[in-house]
Amino acid sequence: MRDVGCPEEELFSFLSSKRQDDLGYRSILSSMCTPPHPVAVRAHMIFIETNLGDPGLFPGTSALEDLLVERLGTLMHRPDAGGYATSGGTESNIQALRIAKKLKPVNSPNVVMPASGHFSFTKACDMLGVEARTVPLDPEFRMNVEMAEDLIDANTVALVGVVGTTEYGMIDPIARLSEIALDRDIFLHVDAAFGGMVAPFLDRPIPFDFRLPGVSSISVDPHKMGMSTIPAGCLLVRDPDWFSRLSVDTPYLTVKREFTLAGTRPGAPVAAAVAVLEYMGRDGMKAVVSGCMENCRRLIEGMETLGCPRAVTPDVNVATFRCERAPPGWRVSMTRQGHMRIVCMPHVTRDVVEEFLADMCDMNA
Amino acid sequence: MRDVGCPEEELFSFLSSKRQDDLGYRSILSSMCTPPHPVAVRAHMIFIETNLGDPGLFPGTSALEDLLVERLGTLMHRPDAGGYATSGGTESNIQALRIAKKLKPVNSPNVVMPASGHFSFTKACDMLGVEARTVPLDPEFRMNVEMAEDLIDANTVALVGVVGTTEYGMIDPIARLSEIALDRDIFLHVDAAFGGMVAPFLDRPIPFDFRLPGVSSISVDPHKMGMSTIPAGCLLVRDPDWFSRLSVDTPYLTVKREFTLAGTRPGAPVAAAVAVLEYMGRDGMKAVVSGCMENCRRLIEGMETLGCPRAVTPDVNVATFRCERAPPGWRVSMTRQGHMRIVCMPHVTRDVVEEFLADMCDMNA
Repeated sequence: MRDVGCPEEELFSFLSSKRQDDLGYRSILSSMCTPPHPVAVRAHMIFIETNLGDPGLFPGTSALEDLLVERLGTLMHRPDAGGYATSGGTESNIQALRIAKKLKPVNSPNVVMPASGHFSFTKACDMLGVEARTVPLDPEFRMNVEMAEDLIDANTVALVGVVGTTEYGMIDPIARLSEIALDRDIFLHVDAAFGGMVAPFLDRPIPFDFRLPGVSSISVDPHKMGMSTIPAGCLLVRDPDWFSRLSVDTPYLTVKREFTLAGTRPGAPVAAAVAVLEYMGRDGMKAVVSGCMENCRRLIEGMETLGCPRAVTPDVNVATFRCERAPPGWRVSMTRQGHMRIVCMPHVTRDVVEEFLADMCDMNA
Repeated sequence: MRDVGCPEEELFSFLSSKRQDDLGYRSILSSMCTPPHPVAVRAHMIFIETNLGDPGLFPGTSALEDLLVERLGTLMHRPDAGGYATSGGTESNIQALRIAKKLKPVNSPNVVMPASGHFSFTKACDMLGVEARTVPLDPEFRMNVEMAEDLIDANTVALVGVVGTTEYGMIDPIARLSEIALDRDIFLHVDAAFGGMVAPFLDRPIPFDFRLPGVSSISVDPHKMGMSTIPAGCLLVRDPDWFSRLSVDTPYLTVKREFTLAGTRPGAPVAAAVAVLEYMGRDGMKAVVSGCMENCRRLIEGMETLGCPRAVTPDVNVATFRCERAPPGWRVSMTRQGHMRIVCMPHVTRDVVEEFLADMCDMNA
């Protein structure tokens, strides 16, 4: 540490120079995050001091967390779902698997999940001492349900399906997983961290939520397609009582028990998430999602015209291509299978798509 | 969800009304958080869009995280310590125990920690399948080191000491724990989430950091006494290579491996934490800590004059009393032993202390 403090203007000139070293979102085509909506930032600032780790001190902010859970629960067809605001998909996935493990105490627990599962499940299984059994994908990069059935045994504490896979934007056959989960009495966790704010607003929605009776829990991240500030995740569970399995005593707080992973938790991104949901409404979210899907289709068509065929037709706004090189100045990413990947987030507007396509065209010329 | 979006002014009138339901910090005497410093808020806003989960997209923000780790590492007498910005003390404690468990693979791992350990260790041990062995405290609420030695066995993967206990503000005898840790080759994690930003600035600092050769890792939270925005925690480790034990593959990101608990991580509170450290410098932090300690002493003296004796003389700015009732309008908390507890955070100014004492006096009159 410096012995003597730095003058404020010198400090902010330094911080601003660092911020300028970051890439601008305009060139970022590889991220599942996007600049927060202006109402999110405005709400965030109002709640910047708040701490949901001690809800009795912040009953107003705490009520907003309840409202967020109710809104997302309703969107997922279970208004009385249990839930809380997490730091993001990883925490949601860890907590869901913790619950599943506690509901079915076996000696050598395993979880059956698709090969497309997010790497957070690797962390979760490592932490919890649970074996991860990975199910191969079908040719369209969705979980192969028959092979999933073969991997399930008496020690399977949870089955995982993904809504909006990170690499290819696919939706696993959740309806069939729900049947298997009911049939074999297994906890079904749906990782909809990305797709949870896309799938409900598609022109032809694919069922994936609590309407399917086998779905036990859902992870959905307002800080991805919900255009909130970071960190804003949400874990929803069918039975709110399940959270008691995770509770620890919390002396010296205004509440006596706590089931969240973190202790101190920011209220600001929760207020931001609520603000976006309320401001947009279903109609507004449909318009955003519809724009992203339209841009995704245009990008795929344009790339195919340039000789870069799609790897698959995605269910949500992630486009992948059988080509490797992007023009300079753009950040795309590559899937493990070597396909170029572009996430059509709200900041990837039609103009951005056309500019990217023009640069692709120039590069190939 | 609403079908149609809510007009912006109606939305913000609703959000503001909720914020008004929260308690103001002026009446909160029970929290280890405090309103963020103005430079923290200003820095937070500049970095509100940033995501440390994909550091290659945000190299400037990522450099600030490195700077935070270097500054705190230097403060803890190990400038080349490994580290990263966590969501807070709970994540730091979980990750430290994960490392300890991996460094010493045994069948039935246990952790030896003081009875004063934060409840986050209960969560961590539950998640990681590690037995928590709790060491009784001495009459001054510090860990009884002799009894700790008795609880250590071949399956002990970590020893935990606390710097600034949540309930009584005590500092465990870390120097002696360091000797034991070296002697018996055990990982020693120091939970300085609260005290890490207090102890180095005391008039008579008590050794607790990497200068003690047995200390393996330290948790310190800028969002507590570091006056940053939430969530800003930090885990420091003696050997940066240890993090590789936690790494998972991260395809489709700008980095290939990731050892953090969360994936998407906010850059804003990290910039805020750096801003406060740089703005304050050692001298500024000493002045803040000195003020908090002075107010804590004044509170204890004043309360004793009113017939409420101290439960113990604290090492850091947490005051506890052998009395139960606080005057109306103030939020204090109670320890498990039934002592009234007040945390003398920076927002608990001398004026606030005098006002509280006057109200205590009126109540007893």
